[in-house]
Amino acid sequence: MTDIKRLDSSSSDFQQQLDRLLDWEGVSNEAVNNTVREVLQAVKSRGDAALVEYTNRFDRMSVGSMAELEISQDRLTAALVNISVAEREGLELAAERVRAYHEHQKVASWSYTEDDGTLLGQQVTPLDRAGLYVPGGKAAYPSSVLMNAIPAKVAGVDELIMVVPTPDGEVNELVLAAAAIAGVDRAFALGGAQAVAGLAYGTETVPQVDKIVGPGNIYVATAKGMVFGTVGIDMIAGPSEILVICDGKTDPDWIAMDLFSQAEHDEDAQSILLCPDQAYLDSVAASIDKLLPTMERKEIIEKSIADRGALIKVADLDEAVTITNHIAPEHLELSVDDPQSMAKQIKHAGAIFMGRYTAEALGDYCAGPNHVLPTSRTARFSSPLGVYDFQKRSSLIMFSADGASHLGKTASTLARGEGLTAHARSAEYRIKD
Amino acid sequence: MTDIKRLDSSSSDFQQQLDRLLDWEGVSNEAVNNTVREVLQAVKSRGDAALVEYTNRFDRMSVGSMAELEISQDRLTAALVNISVAEREGLELAAERVRAYHEHQKVASWSYTEDDGTLLGQQVTPLDRAGLYVPGGKAAYPSSVLMNAIPAKVAGVDELIMVVPTPDGEVNELVLAAAAIAGVDRAFALGGAQAVAGLAYGTETVPQVDKIVGPGNIYVATAKGMVFGTVGIDMIAGPSEILVICDGKTDPDWIAMDLFSQAEHDEDAQSILLCPDQAYLDSVAASIDKLLPTMERKEIIEKSIADRGALIKVADLDEAVTITNHIAPEHLELSVDDPQSMAKQIKHAGAIFMGRYTAEALGDYCAGPNHVLPTSRTARFSSPLGVYDFQKRSSLIMFSADGASHLGKTASTLARGEGLTAHARSAEYRIKD
Repeated sequence: MTDIKRLDSSSSDFQQQLDRLLDWEGVSNEAVNNTVREVLQAVKSRGDAALVEYTNRFDRMSVGSMAELEISQDRLTAALVNISVAEREGLELAAERVRAYHEHQKVASWSYTEDDGTLLGQQVTPLDRAGLYVPGGKAAYPSSVLMNAIPAKVAGVDELIMVVPTPDGEVNELVLAAAAIAGVDRAFALGGAQAVAGLAYGTETVPQVDKIVGPGNIYVATAKGMVFGTVGIDMIAGPSEILVICDGKTDPDWIAMDLFSQAEHDEDAQSILLCPDQAYLDSVAASIDKLLPTMERKEIIEKSIADRGALIKVADLDEAVTITNHIAPEHLELSVDDPQSMAKQIKHAGAIFMGRYTAEALGDYCAGPNHVLPTSRTARFSSPLGVYDFQKRSSLIMFSADGASHLGKTASTLARGEGLTAHARSAEYRIKD
Repeated sequence: MTDIKRLDSSSSDFQQQLDRLLDWEGVSNEAVNNTVREVLQAVKSRGDAALVEYTNRFDRMSVGSMAELEISQDRLTAALVNISVAEREGLELAAERVRAYHEHQKVASWSYTEDDGTLLGQQVTPLDRAGLYVPGGKAAYPSSVLMNAIPAKVAGVDELIMVVPTPDGEVNELVLAAAAIAGVDRAFALGGAQAVAGLAYGTETVPQVDKIVGPGNIYVATAKGMVFGTVGIDMIAGPSEILVICDGKTDPDWIAMDLFSQAEHDEDAQSILLCPDQAYLDSVAASIDKLLPTMERKEIIEKSIADRGALIKVADLDEAVTITNHIAPEHLELSVDDPQSMAKQIKHAGAIFMGRYTAEALGDYCAGPNHVLPTSRTARFSSPLGVYDFQKRSSLIMFSADGASHLGKTASTLARGEGLTAHARSAEYRIKD
């Protein structure tokens, strides 16, 4: 019997039980902080030489210069024939769908002119250069290359630099192929805090970027946190989560497998099912027991399900929505008859998968929307990675002589109220009389 | 003679001189970090009791309960009659213009349906609750209340909670009046790290918010950095900056005063003028010398101008644009004949003030655009505070049975390529045949 928690929203201490289940504290580790600080400082002051040293040490390489760590465009393109045709076609279809979806997110400049000729607006521009961190080794996901790179290219970012560690010289052909398809401009065989430092500060060989995106281990996440401000960063992600609301009419095997598809990521991943039908919850539990032994990653799934999973009996679907809005899940499946009207009631979720056919796994790869989503209740205030993360805005303000004269009086009054008389006098110079 | 630096872009070491001028390292202080960590922990675990203790200690108050620290709606409204009519009308006009401008920033939900019935899109929703930090004492700026509160209200945030310290019981009537005008829902006489902790974790009296915005001292900035993740935060601002590009045809007194209007904020503020005309730079230097003794905040201005200001001779206006794009200034004034075509060449700036009449001071108070802008070169990757900071998006995905069957094959191929077989099987369940 799989040891998944069973909660009931009618228990008097349900809210405490739920909050205990959701509780997640990112680990902060003083030893990691010190190592990362040292690596950042070394790369900042010694550039390429430090990158080569750390890469030889941490990734067990033996290169003599940064030039040997650049992965050429030809090498990226070569990967396209080193993978299977089905894989190549899969990546190309996924890229095409991701690109088409993200085109809808582009923000355009706007402005308007007032009666006295005053022009106000915002000018929207892309970042000049973005850095994409891609993990190496086992957790190397080509889908993440597409999901991080394509929004940047759609935004119009001039140059996209990818870093991916190649521990012991091992490269992942699918990752290189995805980079070729996504249009990565330059790539380096770098990883860890040193790769983040290279992108943030620039070296003789690695160009300085304006923003760094992409997932990584605790060293990478810590380094991204420390260089934030010098460059922009995307969110620092916690463990992945899925929340399923089901009315009890979907094949319980499907739902069990959907829960597994989150749980297999990581022992800390969280899979939760909300349903008003106790008998259905029992059948999903039975499906879990039946299917678990057949799974390749069963040890990870079992621990994730036991430690952080839950089957929750709710009073009705309305209550399920209320609980969901408290949880603000990364992935939300609405496995119900009318998912569209339920979705309208959802206030906080990274992505909403509507209907019994919409497995979250489709969204992870090729539906089109981004799979980089806010975790750990941060969907309360943040959004999926998107084109808007690679664009920024400048306010536009142009006053006519009349407009400046008229509004200058208000600015002067308010500036003097704040004791800022240079502000006041600067506005007053433009007042006619 | 005011001691403002004179740079020339034709010097061989110009780039190094410029980078030295721009260099700014935010201070990180271990003693501050420890104090803030302790305050956050105390408020998280002891709630109202800790808020009352810290407020009595740090703000020299003597209240018995959090209830005494709530500032009622009646008290906010009363402030509207405690200020002058000109001030009230100024705040109301500013609020109206800021609201009208920010209405243009609202992002709407969107979706599209593919041929096989697959629906894709994004649902845009406001944050439930936002917290607004307002500094107390001398640096209390009512204009900042408007600039932070109004975008949240335009976004549709349900509840806006303001915190403002009242050291020794001293309240700022203009700040309370601005809160009444902006529609702040609840207000508390709290400041420092304890106020940030109250908003981030919630207490018996202070509601937990989803995002905290607004400026503050080093304790507030440090606390915001530490609670990031539990709640969202706006940017952590550095010293204010202005960059003026002038063709040499604007009254030099006007430009000198525009430079002062940044410099008077703070000794670390930065004011830079780029101009191709050496004689004009000399006249601005003369205006600085002439006007400085007449300024109320002359000590601050003098130090800021001497330590961080510069008059820079450039080859021509095109070079001025190139240098500006490197600097990515917070405020940019284009005091030239055709500012609109020059603005199109600007890639990175917080706000662009076009034309000789558009004093930056107008933008600070009442033009409409936000005065919370990216500093310290972060305009390379970030934007003015806006309605979009109080909205977030959820991806929408709904597959038809046919769409799920068709794309399930691609998802399965890609998932198996990544070794994630629960993902693959979850997609495969939805493949017909």
